[in-house]
Amino acid sequence: MDQKQELQEEEQVQNKVQQKQQQTKQQPKEKQLAVKNPKGTRDFLPQQMVIRRQAFKIITDVFEQHGAVEIDTPVFELKETLIGKYGEEGGKLIYDLQDQGGEILSLRYDLTVPFARYLATHGYKKLKRYHIGKVYRRDNPSIQQGRFREFFQCDFDIAGENDPMVADAELIKIIDQIFTKLDLGPFQIKISNRKLLDAMISIAGIPKTQFKTVCSSIDKLDKQPWKEIRQELVEKKGVTEEQAEILSKMVQLRGEPFQLIQQLKEQKIFEQQGKEALDEMELLFTLLKYMNGLKNVIFDLSLARGLDYYTGLIQETVLLGGQLGSISGGGRYDDLVGMFSKNSIPCVGASIGIERIFAILEEKYKKSGIVLRENQSDIIVATIPSKNIDMIAEKFKIYDLLWSNGIKADVCYKLNWNLGKQLTYANDQQIPYAIVIGEDEVKQEIVKFKDLIEKKEETINLKDLVQIIKQKVGK
Amino acid sequence: MDQKQELQEEEQVQNKVQQKQQQTKQQPKEKQLAVKNPKGTRDFLPQQMVIRRQAFKIITDVFEQHGAVEIDTPVFELKETLIGKYGEEGGKLIYDLQDQGGEILSLRYDLTVPFARYLATHGYKKLKRYHIGKVYRRDNPSIQQGRFREFFQCDFDIAGENDPMVADAELIKIIDQIFTKLDLGPFQIKISNRKLLDAMISIAGIPKTQFKTVCSSIDKLDKQPWKEIRQELVEKKGVTEEQAEILSKMVQLRGEPFQLIQQLKEQKIFEQQGKEALDEMELLFTLLKYMNGLKNVIFDLSLARGLDYYTGLIQETVLLGGQLGSISGGGRYDDLVGMFSKNSIPCVGASIGIERIFAILEEKYKKSGIVLRENQSDIIVATIPSKNIDMIAEKFKIYDLLWSNGIKADVCYKLNWNLGKQLTYANDQQIPYAIVIGEDEVKQEIVKFKDLIEKKEETINLKDLVQIIKQKVGK
Repeated sequence: MDQKQELQEEEQVQNKVQQKQQQTKQQPKEKQLAVKNPKGTRDFLPQQMVIRRQAFKIITDVFEQHGAVEIDTPVFELKETLIGKYGEEGGKLIYDLQDQGGEILSLRYDLTVPFARYLATHGYKKLKRYHIGKVYRRDNPSIQQGRFREFFQCDFDIAGENDPMVADAELIKIIDQIFTKLDLGPFQIKISNRKLLDAMISIAGIPKTQFKTVCSSIDKLDKQPWKEIRQELVEKKGVTEEQAEILSKMVQLRGEPFQLIQQLKEQKIFEQQGKEALDEMELLFTLLKYMNGLKNVIFDLSLARGLDYYTGLIQETVLLGGQLGSISGGGRYDDLVGMFSKNSIPCVGASIGIERIFAILEEKYKKSGIVLRENQSDIIVATIPSKNIDMIAEKFKIYDLLWSNGIKADVCYKLNWNLGKQLTYANDQQIPYAIVIGEDEVKQEIVKFKDLIEKKEETINLKDLVQIIKQKVGK
Repeated sequence: MDQKQELQEEEQVQNKVQQKQQQTKQQPKEKQLAVKNPKGTRDFLPQQMVIRRQAFKIITDVFEQHGAVEIDTPVFELKETLIGKYGEEGGKLIYDLQDQGGEILSLRYDLTVPFARYLATHGYKKLKRYHIGKVYRRDNPSIQQGRFREFFQCDFDIAGENDPMVADAELIKIIDQIFTKLDLGPFQIKISNRKLLDAMISIAGIPKTQFKTVCSSIDKLDKQPWKEIRQELVEKKGVTEEQAEILSKMVQLRGEPFQLIQQLKEQKIFEQQGKEALDEMELLFTLLKYMNGLKNVIFDLSLARGLDYYTGLIQETVLLGGQLGSISGGGRYDDLVGMFSKNSIPCVGASIGIERIFAILEEKYKKSGIVLRENQSDIIVATIPSKNIDMIAEKFKIYDLLWSNGIKADVCYKLNWNLGKQLTYANDQQIPYAIVIGEDEVKQEIVKFKDLIEKKEETINLKDLVQIIKQKVGK
């Protein structure tokens, strides 16, 4: 069975599971035809959109607090822009568009490579930007683990020739601020340096040609014990027992930043190779200390990060005690822009993986019992039918008054509903106020103003209506 | 030369033009490798993002004013979800994803079909929602006319069994509110009914089988004179001279809604066929009159709309005196959800084409000379180097104070720049305030507070700093 067949069969099984889950969850009243969103993607329901907007707001507020500007790029790029940037494994997961004549295109795999292309296209020398957008990976989806084929990334990057580690430190501070504000529970920002990983592999005597494959084994250290990884290195990746032993002593080191730096200095591990990188780390931690951004940071020599383009700092954020994978990742990529332009521009950045954050926030709201308001309307206009006056005309005249004054007012589309039904509609939509008009009210140019939450009613003059509503809703 | 070859050649020519335009516009200082975004797509630069956000804010505010909730769907759908919904021409423009094993997918062509699929998937009976997202068409792009291959649509739709024309009227009112608030210049909302078009073709004696093809000719009436269209109908579409003559008399009718209705009644054109649709139109215009939403509306019998799924009201908005095409379009599609579900749900909605709106707003800002602020920061912390005190530590301590109090403060990444350069950076970024600290300030726990716009300076206590900035920036 070839890979394509295999994938197709696997899809069929998973589709059935997915359909069943959706049916159970949504409980449609009648049987439907099999109509679904593509595997590994999701629709956002209104309630979920409210949470998503809250999360985006927190994230973008912090980005903007640090002076970042926003940009956007297309969802697809020329295929040649993307290839060769995501390691062996990543490259396989790129979605290609069909060749329908014209350019050969692929869906973007992340926002980092498009950012590098963007800098080159528009001739920037420096830029501090954020970008929130969907990215695409033909990965094996797992809704439980918040792993989708279409998912959002919130990226913040600082491009330009800057003094050493200043931008890197600010980046870590930003991550710390965001996860503190999102209030998802205790988290840890793991930090290392790609050059230290180089140094460790080199110190162990492993040839440069094996670097990538050894790296990708080490990258699994957060999911697998070292024993298993060591075995893989020796049995499958051509690493000798002696080399593995030397690696063992280094790669498992992790701890409070300044303590670990002290220890590494005492043990003289990076005395020759990696010295510069260790000095960089010390400077980074010092700047972070000044910024009060060190409390959730751990210096972790096992951190590898799979992507090809990192050249310095690497970083990953995890929630403590959770089953979820990383909730942010990133690092320094000084050579990527140079692949697109004669002007190489050093860059450092991070992606925040919003899907896992949504999952946690959704769970939090569910547990709290808080039902978020989806319908933002403040009021409806309800009518009591009359034989003498065209209440429909009167109703919509008042709507015009409300709308033209910027008041949020939903409409009930059943014009012959009795008053009770109209007010029930407002209650169902969590709309806090209602105006009621009948024949008498129209004649006297008054309205009944109902507070549906406090269950109070007062009669007010039509000419005071706008002002009173604005007061009530706090405008 | 087959179509694919043709497209490829055409691309090559256009790419050269595009590259040249970009080079002229962006003026990168050194020659770059040919790195471009895909044809027919655009990057959004920070300045453009500010305008885009302003436009989205105006649009979503109106949507929310009417009680709409927000949803989102994936950028691609199963191919079978999309096929057969967009007419002969539209179908050819769909982007397909390559078959890499698994499901057969296409990029969404609009937000309407995904919405119908969404309603079916989640078993809704009714929903009033908005959705802003990118859609994809392999059309011939024209930047001058604001026609892209990737572009935004802002959709507002009302789904559910409602009283006749109430939702339709609110929809038109919403369009009127949005384009009034966007302030792009005088506009016209053209309205007709698909059932009137049916009736006209039937009255002319044209067989039902020719309906679609005759429709697509009539649809061009806003771009071509009737004479040419009549010729096309007779010569290419098998319409007789007599049939064309009868159509002539009806299809060119347009005017103030109630006047045209009066005229049609007097001429007894829709006495037999189309009577119901004409009554619907009269009810719609009456409701709109109540809502004060009729001032920009024109009743236009030439309106056709190319898409297959419309069943009643059709609508299109154009700017008067502009070269741009329509800036919004939509209508009623009562049968579309029924293609995905046993529960048919009547729907009415509109799409606002944001690209053309951006183009106009950008032009407006350019002419006005207003430079929109991209960097939202309110302040930077500038330092005067000192031999006795670690100014870098002091600088970032103040940044921590600012950030932790929610103040927007950008960082200059060159730590050894002199004061003048630091303040020039702030000026370039249009940041209004700066704090300056040197050895003396640190010792005395004061800062110099500079207003960079008013060119004023005062000395304040460090402990009052946060409060003073908050006052200045109005928080």
